[in-house]
Amino acid sequence: MARVGPHPAVADVRRAVREALADLQPDALVLVACSGGADSLALAAALSFVAPRMGLRAGLVTVDHGLQPGSAEQASTVADIGARRLGLHPAEVRTVTVGTEGGPEAAAREARYAALARAADEHGAKAVLLGHTRDDQAETVLLGLARGSGLRSLSGMAAASGRYRRPLLAIPRATTVAACRALDLDPWDDPHNEDPRYTRVRVRRRVLPVLEAELGPGVAEALARTAGMAREDADALEGWAESAYQDCALSDIPGSVTLAVPELEKLPDAVRRRVLRRAAIAAGAPSGALSAAHVLAVDRLVTRWRGQKGVDLPGGLSAVRRYGTLILAISPIA
Amino acid sequence: MARVGPHPAVADVRRAVREALADLQPDALVLVACSGGADSLALAAALSFVAPRMGLRAGLVTVDHGLQPGSAEQASTVADIGARRLGLHPAEVRTVTVGTEGGPEAAAREARYAALARAADEHGAKAVLLGHTRDDQAETVLLGLARGSGLRSLSGMAAASGRYRRPLLAIPRATTVAACRALDLDPWDDPHNEDPRYTRVRVRRRVLPVLEAELGPGVAEALARTAGMAREDADALEGWAESAYQDCALSDIPGSVTLAVPELEKLPDAVRRRVLRRAAIAAGAPSGALSAAHVLAVDRLVTRWRGQKGVDLPGGLSAVRRYGTLILAISPIA
Repeated sequence: MARVGPHPAVADVRRAVREALADLQPDALVLVACSGGADSLALAAALSFVAPRMGLRAGLVTVDHGLQPGSAEQASTVADIGARRLGLHPAEVRTVTVGTEGGPEAAAREARYAALARAADEHGAKAVLLGHTRDDQAETVLLGLARGSGLRSLSGMAAASGRYRRPLLAIPRATTVAACRALDLDPWDDPHNEDPRYTRVRVRRRVLPVLEAELGPGVAEALARTAGMAREDADALEGWAESAYQDCALSDIPGSVTLAVPELEKLPDAVRRRVLRRAAIAAGAPSGALSAAHVLAVDRLVTRWRGQKGVDLPGGLSAVRRYGTLILAISPIA
Repeated sequence: MARVGPHPAVADVRRAVREALADLQPDALVLVACSGGADSLALAAALSFVAPRMGLRAGLVTVDHGLQPGSAEQASTVADIGARRLGLHPAEVRTVTVGTEGGPEAAAREARYAALARAADEHGAKAVLLGHTRDDQAETVLLGLARGSGLRSLSGMAAASGRYRRPLLAIPRATTVAACRALDLDPWDDPHNEDPRYTRVRVRRRVLPVLEAELGPGVAEALARTAGMAREDADALEGWAESAYQDCALSDIPGSVTLAVPELEKLPDAVRRRVLRRAAIAAGAPSGALSAAHVLAVDRLVTRWRGQKGVDLPGGLSAVRRYGTLILAISPIA
């Protein structure tokens, strides 16, 4: 029997793209960020199919990071595939200079997103599609878990964040590979994806396969599902903490925040600690330097009050309890 | 220079036990559940030191699961160490019959907790100490993560649950081994702890070492920290959902729960889905059979209402939307 319609993998990717673009106005321009790897190539192909049928315009941007010999040729090949094979317009290369700050992965990511933002601005794109798959999401959750910094770090990547959209977060990487094969598209294998100096590569090549072997083949899916639930949970708790902060804050100027202890005492631990973190940042503590241990020490001024002295916080702040208030303020010079 | 005071590992375990017992009334009896392994042996030794200094009584229970040749002798050796070496009273063996339901680990656990509960009842114990360490907690989080069933499954074991207390959840297993060595106590190595048929053993022997090698040596600590934060977050969200359920429920009898859609619509996703799960269970859905997919399907009746038909739920229930209400009720026989 002849098969009717596209290959199932192609259909899955197209459906995901269609759902991700459902809210856009007619004639809006959508750009796809495409490295030429299987994930973003399958995404670009799906966009080129779906966009005209939805009354949308579709273009492609590929970023040349200049980190490997021949990267310029590779980028130009991807732009060519976009323009000629997939009919995307614009289809262009953006060349960036990758710095060193924060390590090689973070520096490359920063340069890439800056180039994508410029391209979107210049072309007036309403959305930029990114090819992260369910496997990327699973890796991100494991990396967050290894930091042990709580719910937000387990929530992985957002399906939509500003103009960026990630239609493939529920699609396995194997599906994008199969879609490329079905469409006779030849994906490029980035050698960086095999370089074990990158933590993410080690997670992909060494950690996830062991998890799947020992715990069962559903681990990547379970991790991606965890990310989605963690994101919703974190949103709800942060919303609660924000409104609780407004209820607790007696005064709130940079350099000095005063909270009402009786209001703090009414909150569950998870919310009270988020309020205290929020207050320390409002008072001027740099969020990157403010650890869970700092927040716990401030929390003990609320929940285990025995007249103890103040708590030093990053940014030259200290937290002290005075009668029924908690004051987070720039420490006076002794 | 002569060292003053106990070995640091011994001091760590004693401090953890002291903190876990701080709220007990004088003369209360505390039992330690002791397999003879390093974790629970170090715990038993710490209890025998700490309890008399806090005015508490201390006893030991060891469970003979009867699963291995020589288990009765092993159990009686542990009881002897408890009575003679550590001065614990009572110090007794409880023999159990392990069933098969839910697999070998679950069946053994169920039999063990039932025996501990009986022992605590008979002796009037106010607390039963369990020797789970930070490593056990990390393993539990990984097992929960592999299920992908959300925040509660990431929250590991509770430090206190009813009369059970786990003083060692922040203590690495290596510390209990060092404490036993320093006290010249000879722990028993349970062969089950090496049997790769147990998922937990595979996590311990194969998964965690790979995570530590690829992501850094702090992984077990990060996982245990995640558990603590996840537990607080889950408690807060469940508390919110419970009070939101009370606000949303127009009627609430087994077999039929009616919720107000406008109230549901005000809630964040994470809370609304917990309310819907709560409602389905109140209406009679068996919680074990109620999946995240069921809850999502009901949620679409609230958030993506386009006149769709009802949703079938486990326990012979269905959910339908009627005007501004959502009704979860036993399906009429068609």
